[in-house]
Amino acid sequence: MTGPRFPALIRELPETVPFVGPELQEREMGRPFRARLGANENVFGASPRAVEAICASGEHVWKYADPSHRDLKAALCDKLDCAPENIVFGVGIDGALGDFLRLLVEPGDAVVTSAGAYPTFNYHVDGLGGVLHKVPFRDDHEDIAALFAKAAEVDAKVVYLSNPDNPMGSWHAGEVIEAALADLPEGCVLALDEAYVEFAPEGTAPRIGVEDPRVIRFRTFSKAYGMAGIRLGYAIGAQPLIRAFDKIRNHFAMNGPAQAAAQAAVQDEDWLAHVLAQVDDAKAHIAEIAAASGLTALPSATNFVTVDCGRDGDFARAVLKGLIERGVFVRMPGVAPLDRCIRISAGRPEELDVLAEELPRALAAARGGD
Amino acid sequence: MTGPRFPALIRELPETVPFVGPELQEREMGRPFRARLGANENVFGASPRAVEAICASGEHVWKYADPSHRDLKAALCDKLDCAPENIVFGVGIDGALGDFLRLLVEPGDAVVTSAGAYPTFNYHVDGLGGVLHKVPFRDDHEDIAALFAKAAEVDAKVVYLSNPDNPMGSWHAGEVIEAALADLPEGCVLALDEAYVEFAPEGTAPRIGVEDPRVIRFRTFSKAYGMAGIRLGYAIGAQPLIRAFDKIRNHFAMNGPAQAAAQAAVQDEDWLAHVLAQVDDAKAHIAEIAAASGLTALPSATNFVTVDCGRDGDFARAVLKGLIERGVFVRMPGVAPLDRCIRISAGRPEELDVLAEELPRALAAARGGD
Repeated sequence: MTGPRFPALIRELPETVPFVGPELQEREMGRPFRARLGANENVFGASPRAVEAICASGEHVWKYADPSHRDLKAALCDKLDCAPENIVFGVGIDGALGDFLRLLVEPGDAVVTSAGAYPTFNYHVDGLGGVLHKVPFRDDHEDIAALFAKAAEVDAKVVYLSNPDNPMGSWHAGEVIEAALADLPEGCVLALDEAYVEFAPEGTAPRIGVEDPRVIRFRTFSKAYGMAGIRLGYAIGAQPLIRAFDKIRNHFAMNGPAQAAAQAAVQDEDWLAHVLAQVDDAKAHIAEIAAASGLTALPSATNFVTVDCGRDGDFARAVLKGLIERGVFVRMPGVAPLDRCIRISAGRPEELDVLAEELPRALAAARGGD
Repeated sequence: MTGPRFPALIRELPETVPFVGPELQEREMGRPFRARLGANENVFGASPRAVEAICASGEHVWKYADPSHRDLKAALCDKLDCAPENIVFGVGIDGALGDFLRLLVEPGDAVVTSAGAYPTFNYHVDGLGGVLHKVPFRDDHEDIAALFAKAAEVDAKVVYLSNPDNPMGSWHAGEVIEAALADLPEGCVLALDEAYVEFAPEGTAPRIGVEDPRVIRFRTFSKAYGMAGIRLGYAIGAQPLIRAFDKIRNHFAMNGPAQAAAQAAVQDEDWLAHVLAQVDDAKAHIAEIAAASGLTALPSATNFVTVDCGRDGDFARAVLKGLIERGVFVRMPGVAPLDRCIRISAGRPEELDVLAEELPRALAAARGGD
């Protein structure tokens, strides 16, 4: 009685979890975190109108939600100044990235990203048998020129760039990306992850015609819109590419509460402005807390602050461990030299008070080799 | 300025929509359906406790929902008598089927299903470059012996069987499937779609050890639990196969409202019993309405009734068209001889009144060649 016959690609992949959820860490510790500052969630929450829409959606949940997403697309198109045919939804950006990569990457195909950039992008490439080529960050920024040069060198089908960047919080002005496009090799698509772009200074999103076949953008309701739990991301791109998603995507994937909530959220500009102000305050506070311990907060165009712990990765990992043990959920970059830092999401004042209390202790413990 | 370099597999796939949603049909008609009886949704709705849970989830929607699904898994394991490691969630059964097929099917691999069975299964196989082999229904039932014989003949990696069946509503006793397993070829996995099993007579679900490596089952919250809109399906199978999903799935795909609602729904047995009784009443009523027009309702172990229109596919398509034009959303099987039938979901009394009024008219129009 044999089991399934997995292809070699699948057999050789690791069973993996790109991110361990804080819930699992809490269960292992036997107590909840006192401050949830690790997943770049938006603790200031969704628009009250979106929350209402979720509640109201319960009554209609017996229906399959509209697979053409007409109402939500209409709301987004108003905002983004594009046609419904330029948008496709995914189950979070993760889902949209996965679908996009399935459209292009076959085993052996080259894909370029930055060393230390979004692990779930890499997970999808690995899962398709693509070959990842990684380019180092340069001065804590993704190095666009080096990324595009590497793409040319390895004949990449896709190059990934997040702007603003995660995990460093850095960013390039939109103009820089616009100018760099001239050096994007023929036949390579730029996957531009703009998950955090709503937090960034005006002008961070490059002005690229939506029908430009070289670029596809990814955005989400998980960050500025405060709804990581609804799983709704989307891609914006040229119609031929967006239409191709219809060949492989899960057409009924967008849940009803999410569609209703996202539509309400897009139309609530006031709440978005409120959240952005709260996030700015929180980031300033995190920078003060870091400075009070002699650490440097890197400039951030996101809803998190990457704090340079001033030594090497082992030291930052010790600081991280100390914070987690003290009930502060944070994460950190995975590769050197980025891993000299820890990454702290914008939190509510009461959570940042916990951080202010525990960071000096975690640092002292790390310095003491505790 | 070239566009994306799609592989041949993707280039040659059709841009498709496995099912057109009723919303699109309504927009094209310029008016809403009077009776929504085409998608086998559960019009009797979700457990009030689940609806409450969706409402309450709005407040927490800023968080990523637990990617380990611990609480929901615990509730399901109680009910299914299996371990958490035997369950994996998907974005609907569609999502779970898609992930499962990605684990096994490479271009050129053989997969067996019934001609006229679930189109979305076929869509996923096509999207992976698998080669579908289709076996005819036998007396309106999926023909298990012929499916397994075909699987042996073509060295299939996967054979699909839905029990109860969609679109015919027929079923096999669990014992029949248990006995047939002896003839499942080595190295072929039986994908047993039990989306409708809660509606079926006791004994329809085969007793197969959860660690049996030959079988994987698929279930959903879309049908008996009345929550098609939350997009939550799951697969139950042997741990090595279930663990393999962790190599490729979208780990954070399960939205928060869905997890909360499903957990509440599983624990509300009374509501499930209430729904099943309502569905039985509705099915009896549909059979009466069919009989009043001289049509035969096929026996059904699902929440829909497949009605034999008594002539060929062209006639049934004319009846279907007449119903849709008259505001009754229904669907029908896609291949002969199944396409002599139309498929009507269990509806509320007021919707079935519309059906009772319009079916004779649609029939008269179809007979008149209108």
